Amino acid sequence: MSYALLSRRFHQLHHFAHLSAICGWDQATMMPEGGNDARAAALAELSLLMHERLTAPELADWFAAAQAESLTPAQQISLQEMQRRHRQASVLPGDLVQAKSLAGSGCEHAWRRQRRENDWAGFLTNFQEVVALSREEAAIRAEANGGRPYDSLLDLYEPGMNCTQIDGLFAELQQWLPDLIRQVTERQATESVILPQGPFATAAQQDLGRQIMGLLGFDFSRGRQDVSAHPFCGGVPSDVRITTRFDEADFTQSLMGIIHETGHARYEQGLPAQWQGLPVGEARSMGIHESQSLFFEMQLARHPGFVAQLPPLLEASFGPQPAFAADNLARLYTRVAPGYIRVDADEVTYPAHIMLRYEIEKRLIEGDIEARDIPELWDLRMQQYLGLSTAGNDKDGCLQDIHWTDGSFGYFPSYTLGALYAAQLAEALQQQLGSFASLLSQPDGLGNIFAWLQQHIWQQASLLDTDALIRQATGTPLSVAPFRRHLQARYLGRHA
Amino acid sequence: MSYALLSRRFHQLHHFAHLSAICGWDQATMMPEGGNDARAAALAELSLLMHERLTAPELADWFAAAQAESLTPAQQISLQEMQRRHRQASVLPGDLVQAKSLAGSGCEHAWRRQRRENDWAGFLTNFQEVVALSREEAAIRAEANGGRPYDSLLDLYEPGMNCTQIDGLFAELQQWLPDLIRQVTERQATESVILPQGPFATAAQQDLGRQIMGLLGFDFSRGRQDVSAHPFCGGVPSDVRITTRFDEADFTQSLMGIIHETGHARYEQGLPAQWQGLPVGEARSMGIHESQSLFFEMQLARHPGFVAQLPPLLEASFGPQPAFAADNLARLYTRVAPGYIRVDADEVTYPAHIMLRYEIEKRLIEGDIEARDIPELWDLRMQQYLGLSTAGNDKDGCLQDIHWTDGSFGYFPSYTLGALYAAQLAEALQQQLGSFASLLSQPDGLGNIFAWLQQHIWQQASLLDTDALIRQATGTPLSVAPFRRHLQARYLGRHA
Ligand SMILES: [Zn+2]
Ligand SMILES: [Zn+2]
Repeated sequence: MSYALLSRRFHQLHHFAHLSAICGWDQATMMPEGGNDARAAALAELSLLMHERLTAPELADWFAAAQAESLTPAQQISLQEMQRRHRQASVLPGDLVQAKSLAGSGCEHAWRRQRRENDWAGFLTNFQEVVALSREEAAIRAEANGGRPYDSLLDLYEPGMNCTQIDGLFAELQQWLPDLIRQVTERQATESVILPQGPFATAAQQDLGRQIMGLLGFDFSRGRQDVSAHPFCGGVPSDVRITTRFDEADFTQSLMGIIHETGHARYEQGLPAQWQGLPVGEARSMGIHESQSLFFEMQLARHPGFVAQLPPLLEASFGPQPAFAADNLARLYTRVAPGYIRVDADEVTYPAHIMLRYEIEKRLIEGDIEARDIPELWDLRMQQYLGLSTAGNDKDGCLQDIHWTDGSFGYFPSYTLGALYAAQLAEALQQQLGSFASLLSQPDGLGNIFAWLQQHIWQQASLLDTDALIRQATGTPLSVAPFRRHLQARYLGRHA
Repeated sequence: MSYALLSRRFHQLHHFAHLSAICGWDQATMMPEGGNDARAAALAELSLLMHERLTAPELADWFAAAQAESLTPAQQISLQEMQRRHRQASVLPGDLVQAKSLAGSGCEHAWRRQRRENDWAGFLTNFQEVVALSREEAAIRAEANGGRPYDSLLDLYEPGMNCTQIDGLFAELQQWLPDLIRQVTERQATESVILPQGPFATAAQQDLGRQIMGLLGFDFSRGRQDVSAHPFCGGVPSDVRITTRFDEADFTQSLMGIIHETGHARYEQGLPAQWQGLPVGEARSMGIHESQSLFFEMQLARHPGFVAQLPPLLEASFGPQPAFAADNLARLYTRVAPGYIRVDADEVTYPAHIMLRYEIEKRLIEGDIEARDIPELWDLRMQQYLGLSTAGNDKDGCLQDIHWTDGSFGYFPSYTLGALYAAQLAEALQQQLGSFASLLSQPDGLGNIFAWLQQHIWQQASLLDTDALIRQATGTPLSVAPFRRHLQARYLGRHA
């Protein structure tokens, strides 16, 4: 049985990915600095092995033979997902993979200093090499897949998505978002918000975070919460590891970070056990993954019905203070302010950060602009979308993100696709189960919300493509409209 | 270059062993219970891969060709160590390896309950299968290596050692040890010792442990200290992970446990960087490993010159109490009391526990006794050596250890070999550098002791065989005499 051989091979790869995920988590959370070189070498060795096993010549024969076997419909989908992985890994020549990995890690390493020092010129030298190799990758992938070069990179993170579709979605956003931002900031200018007064002890923040994770249904018998410099959700579905960083002056950042990562974690913990170990049993895409974290962080946790549950928890953790009044917290957690930094952005201004990055990386990959043109275009779009200039301030402009340094072009759209999916899912859920306001006033309201996500997203894993998944859950294809309605309702008090 | 191919293969195995060690550590310290099945499967997958790569048919050709290459003397030794690993792994048929692993993990799993329930009869059923497979293993290995069946198992843990030599060492111990135990216990019967009064907060114990590790030169930039149910030293030389468990009623157990594991850890941290990743760069043997932990825990940490440094540290951690007087601590840490349980034994009675296990496992493997004969022989020897009967109390007798449950026959002698090596090393060191009493009264005394171990043991890795290593460090082959002199001096006040 060739399908059985393939299943065995992909389970093997899954086991290796397990060890890689845990050692990667350890590297970010537990490892002493002196362990890094040996760890990096050990993980690179395993990557190489996994790449060999995924691209091994016998797989082509097994795929061909498996087509002729009598498979269940689910096994046929599983087979397609295996082939997609194999194709994606096999299409690039080994020396290009290695050259890109080398150039990427060199560029990323130097960037950590260059960003601090606002050194665009220094960065550009390394970055041009990364761009050249990424263009080569995109061209080779496009040649193999059909479609445009940038589409072939997008497909690595959001399978089935393409520029034409994103161009349409983003053009729609651009029509009304700048104006909406202006209206919201004007409206909020007269609002008064009391800021919580620190310090907030790290141990108390960590306790609070774990309570909230419990409230959000995180299964601690199959996961952990720890500290790392850059928050992430790692590990494996049977043992999901989320991290955060704590700032004693401000608990909101870690609290919202934990809620965000808990969204990612519940998706992983909710994946179907029966497909564990096969590609079809994994999360659908980066956009869908981000939709779950943003559903938790934005749709749910900043809803007044959820915020109303926080005051007693905050008081128990930090003692009482006026800022902890529910209506003040609700204002605080929906505050909109254009800023330079993407990761600090609110949900209203966030898409502007993504649209400008998307335009730049697409034009860059397709040869329409060069790397040296980035700062000027960045400044132009920041002024246009958010009224801020980054001229001469690249460290808060085009040097702020890690994604491009190692050539992860095509990733950025996932964030805004995630926000759009999240709004569309939240709207459909409320149409089916009742409003968040009424759900969150019931003791089993959160449980019902999670059961809906479990049924429509988590347990679907990769059994459907993204479009079918969203249509099945919401009844319509991806659309900007629910996100617009959500922002108008939450930030302008306008209900359709 | 075949040597280069071999070097590459063994570096690859080393990288995989790195990932296995870290994920194994994680399993014991960090992993939530629900992660266990997937972790066990992932680690088993990697073990299988490593076994395949270590026993791959091309290695035989590479070994043959490398013999003819011009290698440095150190490379020739390195080559021999590679061949030894390859031979050890290749000699057993795959189905025997698998059958033993299966029987062993089943027996071990059931033992955890059977020990608690004192269920020898239940244990015996599974254990007979483990014994049968271990006898088969020993016979096959002996056939391949020459020598006696038990020797071939011993060789897995203590290469170059054999029964004849151990019989001689243990016969010598048996001549004087029972009498020495009697003299010491009589002498100590009139001593008064004040026991420390708890509770001792876990956090304070952990802090104290880390201070002591620092004092003992543990490099925290290349290692960690954590908590696990069963203390161990794991990780990799660039990142050594030691663990302990804490009991709030008693800090001595965790303190001495940490000192013991720090001895193991410094050996690993002190291995030569230039041979990192090859078998020749690894620790020499289990006996030498145990010699370093026992050097730290027994020779050094229970010496009055070291104990004298503890009172201010204990007072800072737990507040003052009469038990913390240096002379009281020195008596407490050299208290001798025959008992049932090996892991709780003092250094004087410990060898009796090993001698009885050695006799039983050797006779068992060589077919001289059967598994069903163990309880009676155990009881007989316990009465003879320590004046205690285990009749009807197998849970504190032959059911107490994990080693036999998965067929790790041949391991036990390492503990007493370690104690003998440690005493011999300590005697040689003091002959060369001065007594511990004078060394420990100097600010750089500990540093000089560690530098001596670094030079004579740690940086030697596996470049010499055990016999040559000990001769080079001490001028004589392994002997019981230094251990006897150490016990007589410390416990009877008799100096040669
Ligand atoms: Zn996220
Ligand atoms: Zn030990």
